[in-house]
Amino acid sequence: MTDPIPVYLDCDTGVDDAVALAYLLRSPHVDVVGIGTVSGNTSAAQAARNTLDLLGLAGVDSIPVAIGAHHHSSHEYAGGAAHVHGDNGIGGVELPRSAREPEDVTAVELLIDLSHRYEGRLHLVTIGPLTNIIEALAADPTLPTRIAGVATMGGAASVPGNITPVAEANIFNDPAAADALLTAEWDVTLVPLDATMEHTLSEDDRVTLAEASDPLLRAVGAMLDHYFEFYLPTYGVRTSALHDPLAAVIAAGGTTITRGPRVPVRVDTTHGPGRGQTIADLRGQRLGDRDHPEARTRVVLEVDGSISAHLMEVLTGERP
Amino acid sequence: MTDPIPVYLDCDTGVDDAVALAYLLRSPHVDVVGIGTVSGNTSAAQAARNTLDLLGLAGVDSIPVAIGAHHHSSHEYAGGAAHVHGDNGIGGVELPRSAREPEDVTAVELLIDLSHRYEGRLHLVTIGPLTNIIEALAADPTLPTRIAGVATMGGAASVPGNITPVAEANIFNDPAAADALLTAEWDVTLVPLDATMEHTLSEDDRVTLAEASDPLLRAVGAMLDHYFEFYLPTYGVRTSALHDPLAAVIAAGGTTITRGPRVPVRVDTTHGPGRGQTIADLRGQRLGDRDHPEARTRVVLEVDGSISAHLMEVLTGERP
Repeated sequence: MTDPIPVYLDCDTGVDDAVALAYLLRSPHVDVVGIGTVSGNTSAAQAARNTLDLLGLAGVDSIPVAIGAHHHSSHEYAGGAAHVHGDNGIGGVELPRSAREPEDVTAVELLIDLSHRYEGRLHLVTIGPLTNIIEALAADPTLPTRIAGVATMGGAASVPGNITPVAEANIFNDPAAADALLTAEWDVTLVPLDATMEHTLSEDDRVTLAEASDPLLRAVGAMLDHYFEFYLPTYGVRTSALHDPLAAVIAAGGTTITRGPRVPVRVDTTHGPGRGQTIADLRGQRLGDRDHPEARTRVVLEVDGSISAHLMEVLTGERP
Repeated sequence: MTDPIPVYLDCDTGVDDAVALAYLLRSPHVDVVGIGTVSGNTSAAQAARNTLDLLGLAGVDSIPVAIGAHHHSSHEYAGGAAHVHGDNGIGGVELPRSAREPEDVTAVELLIDLSHRYEGRLHLVTIGPLTNIIEALAADPTLPTRIAGVATMGGAASVPGNITPVAEANIFNDPAAADALLTAEWDVTLVPLDATMEHTLSEDDRVTLAEASDPLLRAVGAMLDHYFEFYLPTYGVRTSALHDPLAAVIAAGGTTITRGPRVPVRVDTTHGPGRGQTIADLRGQRLGDRDHPEARTRVVLEVDGSISAHLMEVLTGERP
């Protein structure tokens, strides 16, 4: 077994962020070395509180958590997605308050610091709006040279969006920031709704988590209850799409990408009806995936196997 | 059998326009009562010449043909798509020149005139850029009240575009005009690449046409030769997508729409990377087609049966 890869997580915790975080903490292939938060599902400050409390439940006190951008690069934060993630971002579940507080540095400062400490090895996993990333790229344009790879949950390539007909929420919340991430000089694995909507957690899985003895899993199972209700009209059953968890699973090498061409991707930063769309050039792919020679963004359209089974296995520590 | 429906065809003839025209002339369910041309695949004037010459080959001298817009509503016509449709729009094939000339009226005038003559019964079939339509709507805002229905080849809902990553050529050539068509008070059946790319003509079919005794079919078979070459890299075999013919088949009732929700559709008229995209709101369709109560545009995603078999049957007059 190879050494676990150092991961910096940028998140807006968030119910499915919590699932992704729990997975990353439990994956033997990943070493989470720092976490930054951003406003999205909830405010950056609340996301940091949720993250610290989840780390407390997990018995982890070594991972620094820094608060990042409250407002987005093009507009002010408008209050999150309480109808999806509950008033506190985690389905209204009250976690035991950890004694730990966020770092005195910003998320941008933490990311840049860790990019030096783990130079050439640090993987960046983003599961929220990309505001911290555009700020980090502005603060230190050499950042990409020290990052081994980026996995980003966001966008919609060939499927409808979830906040407009064509835009996914993470990208729509800060289109300019997403564009900055996708045009920087690093390799990005973009994990859009095309893939994430095809992988769901079942009510049985949720009950297994909610009834576990492990307090972290119990909390995650409880907060998924609210989230499952939100997805009922979409899927016709209580379930949840595995948006953020899929990006975490991909970053940890927990699945194989079966369709994921490297193609040019632009973000629509206009104020027209396409705002926030990830425009991936998927022309000419009818006969199979075809990478564009210059493209550094891999657009994940399909992954192998059951992500929920893998996720449950890692979370519960049980191999079926 | 019911009476044939009166159809006004707006076209930019064009190889696949020629196939669609031949089909409409031969369909017993349709009575083509007028044709307007617009710049697109070729210039509006050349499209009219091609159309008249095709009508001549078909032995039809009763259908008025009027030249429409040369330039588009937002920009000047830039010279067509010779790489797809050949220098003269019809694959370089030299048709016998018909003695007939275009009408003295414009396409807009012809359409408005026929909308009165066939009030409440006239079906509009558009297979080119929509410049004539925005001009007709401006000239007579009551036009939609006299039109029974509109079938429009254009756009891409869930599949890549063919001129940009997200835009189809007919819409991209005049986004504002397409938006005018899609927001006017009439029922539109939008036939996008989602459906048209799934239906192709085989080389065997093409040879059958090219070797027919009927001069119209021979001409169509000959011009498809050039067009088939263009599609080789896309499909891996010599073939052609049935873009315009599918709109004609749908207008003539020659197939059943198996997936075609009525949803809001907006055209991106910005100058951003999404310009010319047909943004169809296909959210919430995972459990099956769901019509939006106010929407008047049906987006054809899938049709029943073999369109090429039906097309060949109608063109050759042979029932297999």
